[in-house]
Amino acid sequence: MSPVLADSVRFTGDGVDILDRRVFPAERSWVRCASVEDVAKAIEDMVTQSSGPYFAALWGMVLAAREATSLGAVPARAYLARAGERLVATRRTNNHLRKAVAAALSEVDGQAGEALVAAVLAGARAGELRYRSRSAALGRHTAELLPDKGTVLTHCWADLYLVELVRAAEGKDLAFVCTETRPYLQGARLTAETLAEMGVDTTVITDGMGAAVLSGGSVDALVTAADRVTMDGHVVNKIGTLGLAVAAHAFGVPFHAMVQAPDRLAATADDVPIEYRDGAEVLDRPGIRGLYPAFDITPPRFVTTVVTDRGPFAPNDLATYYREVS
Amino acid sequence: MSPVLADSVRFTGDGVDILDRRVFPAERSWVRCASVEDVAKAIEDMVTQSSGPYFAALWGMVLAAREATSLGAVPARAYLARAGERLVATRRTNNHLRKAVAAALSEVDGQAGEALVAAVLAGARAGELRYRSRSAALGRHTAELLPDKGTVLTHCWADLYLVELVRAAEGKDLAFVCTETRPYLQGARLTAETLAEMGVDTTVITDGMGAAVLSGGSVDALVTAADRVTMDGHVVNKIGTLGLAVAAHAFGVPFHAMVQAPDRLAATADDVPIEYRDGAEVLDRPGIRGLYPAFDITPPRFVTTVVTDRGPFAPNDLATYYREVS
Repeated sequence: MSPVLADSVRFTGDGVDILDRRVFPAERSWVRCASVEDVAKAIEDMVTQSSGPYFAALWGMVLAAREATSLGAVPARAYLARAGERLVATRRTNNHLRKAVAAALSEVDGQAGEALVAAVLAGARAGELRYRSRSAALGRHTAELLPDKGTVLTHCWADLYLVELVRAAEGKDLAFVCTETRPYLQGARLTAETLAEMGVDTTVITDGMGAAVLSGGSVDALVTAADRVTMDGHVVNKIGTLGLAVAAHAFGVPFHAMVQAPDRLAATADDVPIEYRDGAEVLDRPGIRGLYPAFDITPPRFVTTVVTDRGPFAPNDLATYYREVS
Repeated sequence: MSPVLADSVRFTGDGVDILDRRVFPAERSWVRCASVEDVAKAIEDMVTQSSGPYFAALWGMVLAAREATSLGAVPARAYLARAGERLVATRRTNNHLRKAVAAALSEVDGQAGEALVAAVLAGARAGELRYRSRSAALGRHTAELLPDKGTVLTHCWADLYLVELVRAAEGKDLAFVCTETRPYLQGARLTAETLAEMGVDTTVITDGMGAAVLSGGSVDALVTAADRVTMDGHVVNKIGTLGLAVAAHAFGVPFHAMVQAPDRLAATADDVPIEYRDGAEVLDRPGIRGLYPAFDITPPRFVTTVVTDRGPFAPNDLATYYREVS
């Protein structure tokens, strides 16, 4: 069956409904966004994350086009550019937002009014299709790396990549172990629930248990998504990935990082700004500081494979991704 | 100032008051134990942990002696033996309980009635003094390994060892980073609160953030307690220690494990039973399994120093601990 998180950002024609991942699965409630600013706020407020912001930004740009129907082509284009900047600024570590805005604007060519809305809608629809088809390819290529009846350790929430991996690996009878992923518990809430919805054998551990599980010999691979992979093979992903990757390396377990494509705009880790969120989200008590780097960076020496929509690559061979086609 | 957790198990003459660490610091409530069975249940229920069970077992044995005053010497001794077995069985990974029971019985020599109570009380008092003085020595030896103005990453709750380390390092102006330590949050609750009570600069991170912090160059040492250290240098400690130790090793940060003494009864890791607690304490949701190994085992290759009450030792040189004295 298709899990609810595989379709959790929906364009309704005059708004965008976003499943509130902050309370899922305890509650299944949707946040209605009537404007591009509502969408930006929802992303900032972590109503959705992972792949969610990509889809939210696509449809947010359609809302922006609707807000600009009374403007001429030039000011409407400027309005869309500002809306795009607003969306991209909501969360900086991930590349999805920049790509979603570019996709939504890809078919815009001097239109105004309803024609502009139609052009943005066409770009957004094409962006959604492309994202889903690339995720499906990524899932297939990752499944090929995993043994029958294998056990996979994953971290945080790999979203559509995970869903497509499970679909592609259906005959393999995989079992998953997921970290709970504090402080937002994406692993315990989103990953575990989605795997269970899909009928997969699912175990949840705390974030500190990963190394012990990896050292015990029962895990065949560590598989996570990556928010970005730099051209020199650094994997940027949810905080906690680095520790699991280092432990996997120490205990001889391969680490496969899933990303649609390495990031041509990031030659190395220095090119990726790491988002620090409010430390109070980790701990809010007088006299004690909370620290919350939202992502960490795993150097290529701890990465076995970067799996892309074009297949698996060694982390030191990512330039090939762009050489193969084109 | 002396933090409340430095004196959190108190013998009152006719009972044992145990600070409830499960709700500290949100609440400062004490569990009153009127019998040795109450004490055993409190340990099983995690009212106290780390050093707490040692003191609880000392005073629990005094309660057992009081329960046996109407018995003759032989049945009284059998009653105490059963009480000791009951206490030791509450939590199996740690050596503290066995040692506390032995300490409480060390001055028993064929007495009965009030004389037996007095003998057990004397043994318990001597056990408490010895434990505190060895912890203080351990704290001093550990402080010597740390640089002035150093930053220390710690995990879970090292209890009196930590308190004594901070006391011994008072002039060094150390800063601490503590993992929150899911699922019980001993780090966020006990360690962070105690450090703040003692006026130490304190930052809390989630369990998944340790590797990122260790890779960033700001941490001078990883310092944790050990529940046990085997004679061949395996460090048994709260789940999560292994992952931090592996990351510290990967990024060139020393790992100092604090234990009063290596365990002569455990030649290697195979001699230490690992306690698995109920997975529902990690996650309790239909269709998903929670897993809760309470401890992990760090191999000696990831351990820099085992600090004992007799000073620091390399993990492959622990036999020297017993050779030096005796």
